Amino acid sequence: MSATQPVLPALLAFAAPDAGISVERFLLLLAVILISAKILGELAEHIGQPAVIGELLAGVLLGPSVVGLVDPTLPPLHLIAEIGVVLLLFGIGLETDLERLLRVGAAAFTVAVVGVLLPFVLGYGVSRVLNLAVLPAIVIGAALTATSVGITARVFSDLGELKSPEGQIVLGAAVIDDVIGLVILAIVSDLVAGNAPSVMGVARATAVAFGFLAAAVFIGRLIVPWLFRLIARTSKEHTLASMALALAFVLAVLASQVGSALIVGAFAAGLVLAPTEHAHTIERGIIRLANVFVPIFFVAVGAAVDVRTFGSRDVVIVGVALTAVAIVGKFAAGWAPVWVRARKTVIGVGMIPRGEVGLIFAQAGLAAGVLNAGEYSALMLMVLVTTFMAPPLLRRLLTKAAVTTVQPQLDESAVGEMTTEA
Amino acid sequence: MSATQPVLPALLAFAAPDAGISVERFLLLLAVILISAKILGELAEHIGQPAVIGELLAGVLLGPSVVGLVDPTLPPLHLIAEIGVVLLLFGIGLETDLERLLRVGAAAFTVAVVGVLLPFVLGYGVSRVLNLAVLPAIVIGAALTATSVGITARVFSDLGELKSPEGQIVLGAAVIDDVIGLVILAIVSDLVAGNAPSVMGVARATAVAFGFLAAAVFIGRLIVPWLFRLIARTSKEHTLASMALALAFVLAVLASQVGSALIVGAFAAGLVLAPTEHAHTIERGIIRLANVFVPIFFVAVGAAVDVRTFGSRDVVIVGVALTAVAIVGKFAAGWAPVWVRARKTVIGVGMIPRGEVGLIFAQAGLAAGVLNAGEYSALMLMVLVTTFMAPPLLRRLLTKAAVTTVQPQLDESAVGEMTTEA
Repeated sequence: MSATQPVLPALLAFAAPDAGISVERFLLLLAVILISAKILGELAEHIGQPAVIGELLAGVLLGPSVVGLVDPTLPPLHLIAEIGVVLLLFGIGLETDLERLLRVGAAAFTVAVVGVLLPFVLGYGVSRVLNLAVLPAIVIGAALTATSVGITARVFSDLGELKSPEGQIVLGAAVIDDVIGLVILAIVSDLVAGNAPSVMGVARATAVAFGFLAAAVFIGRLIVPWLFRLIARTSKEHTLASMALALAFVLAVLASQVGSALIVGAFAAGLVLAPTEHAHTIERGIIRLANVFVPIFFVAVGAAVDVRTFGSRDVVIVGVALTAVAIVGKFAAGWAPVWVRARKTVIGVGMIPRGEVGLIFAQAGLAAGVLNAGEYSALMLMVLVTTFMAPPLLRRLLTKAAVTTVQPQLDESAVGEMTTEA
Repeated sequence: MSATQPVLPALLAFAAPDAGISVERFLLLLAVILISAKILGELAEHIGQPAVIGELLAGVLLGPSVVGLVDPTLPPLHLIAEIGVVLLLFGIGLETDLERLLRVGAAAFTVAVVGVLLPFVLGYGVSRVLNLAVLPAIVIGAALTATSVGITARVFSDLGELKSPEGQIVLGAAVIDDVIGLVILAIVSDLVAGNAPSVMGVARATAVAFGFLAAAVFIGRLIVPWLFRLIARTSKEHTLASMALALAFVLAVLASQVGSALIVGAFAAGLVLAPTEHAHTIERGIIRLANVFVPIFFVAVGAAVDVRTFGSRDVVIVGVALTAVAIVGKFAAGWAPVWVRARKTVIGVGMIPRGEVGLIFAQAGLAAGVLNAGEYSALMLMVLVTTFMAPPLLRRLLTKAAVTTVQPQLDESAVGEMTTEA
């Protein structure tokens, strides 16, 4: 800064040092995001859809392809959105009973593995049939393996079905998918760089990714309840929630550092705190934060979809083909655990949305120069359709099932009220 | 990005595009800030001090001058800290009864004006006596006029005295001070740029600054209750809190745009919502957010103080002299409304802390090249001492007064309990 600069501009510079965005613009941006997400979220619920659909739509509308107000790559917005998804998975973990989750462990694992293999093979095959090169076909196959644990968990939670067997299986499978997805990303990264991936390397990456989750939950269950009893004895309630939040952040970062994902660590933090006597106090504190941060995350996910790219005929052909196999692959995976007594259709549909995870694969492929703009757009279309179709479909399946189940005990009018309310 | 870059680094780049800080580092930073702020805040309360003292101390310790973990100028941290002070003032506004505030309006105005004039004249005078040039002396005088409405309001709120006549007078005076402070900053800015400030310009800046507050509250009271009744009728509780937050952000930005300050707008938003039937619902939602964001703001304020600069003898001499007149000037202002029946000592001490507002003046002066490093450090010392001395002093005054007042109705042991608890 020059020595003759007047004080007022210098003050304004101090107010936003190299931020790329001033405090004023950022607050305004957050206000616009919050207002749009809440209005469209409420509207979605009024027409019987989960709120998350409205939030995603708000993102698409505010994003670069329509209004152009929200750029999801803006660094501070990206940070806030990441805090949002960390809070979401932390909250989901807090509501999850590890024993119940482990009871469906084999089913979840089967769904996850089949839901990775099938979409990968189908995605690769379709791409090759449509004359794409080997490397792009591999990246596209990899992008089809993702499941958006965020959207899935949010929809089941919105509908009060997170603790159903189907909810638990999908949640477990989506988390396992996230862990597998990172291993696949590492392999694809090696391939793109021209290195043949070694069996040892893949095995180690897999072991680390799953080992982290197991170790975090095991060690956490030994130390954390004792630590939080100590904090609860000496501190106020709001300190407890802040400390829990700090724990979620620390475990998220640890997970990311060892090669797993932020949200896996956040979920682990929730799992660790769930059985303590403070889980409810912590949840009360986290919910208010999540109410503000989580919609920002979903708006950012929506804003990352560029609807302008869907004009070309080639994009539409490849996109529709990929969307079809993306749906079929995950839906079939829902039926993989044949021995489980659960609504397989619900599981299959629950695994369909690709959401932000699919976008990350597509973005990475584009940034690395493996995908061209057309292939990237085709993946975008796949992400958009799978993400937006699953929530309303899931809602219809779950409320229909609920009505069928409870009908014997209720008269006609009560059922009517129930479906209107849901 | 080059076309041959492997996918994984590209993914990591996508995870933190030009952020200056990765998501991982930022989450870790927030975790460290939250943990330190809460531990030192609880410790402060255990030794009978307001929590804000612990949070400020955590900032000094984590800041560049000691541990070096927290850089308060880091853009995303600065944004989060600003959200913190906006939430703080919004919350204070929500708890403020405008009619009660206006009843002490004349007193508050007198305290504010005397509390600006006296420290300015004393600061300028002392600086000239100590052989400083005219321009630095003016900037130093201006820096002494500030009152930290954040720290003051937080301490009164921590001690449950925000609604006492003294609390209301100090709050009102601190808000008026903030508005006057921005006018002074504009004048000083003109002087530094070599322009003689025009009477018309100053009058207009003053009118705009005060006019905004009046207009926002007047228009807001007409529209906002109707708007929020509509929202409450059609939406969930958490939507109401998010909409209130968006209103606070929008009014904060509006205030800043017309030449007032962010926090003045946030305070106005709280004032407008305070008399509505939804004030409690909104407050419940805001408090959880504030519990996380506000300590981050105070840690950032603490981290902006560089204790390494207090080594030089000249700095200490100038610093001690400025600190003395800074205390005397504001303390005397507390006695200015002679006609008011209130504890004048409490008002005077309540006006003493300069906090972040004093730091902004000092930073602006340094950045503009008007202050040298020594003069800047002397102002830092003044800010540090006034900020840290007021909360414990205020606590002692208020609890002593409380004991004196209630003693007639209570027996010895109850008084003992009360002072231990407070």
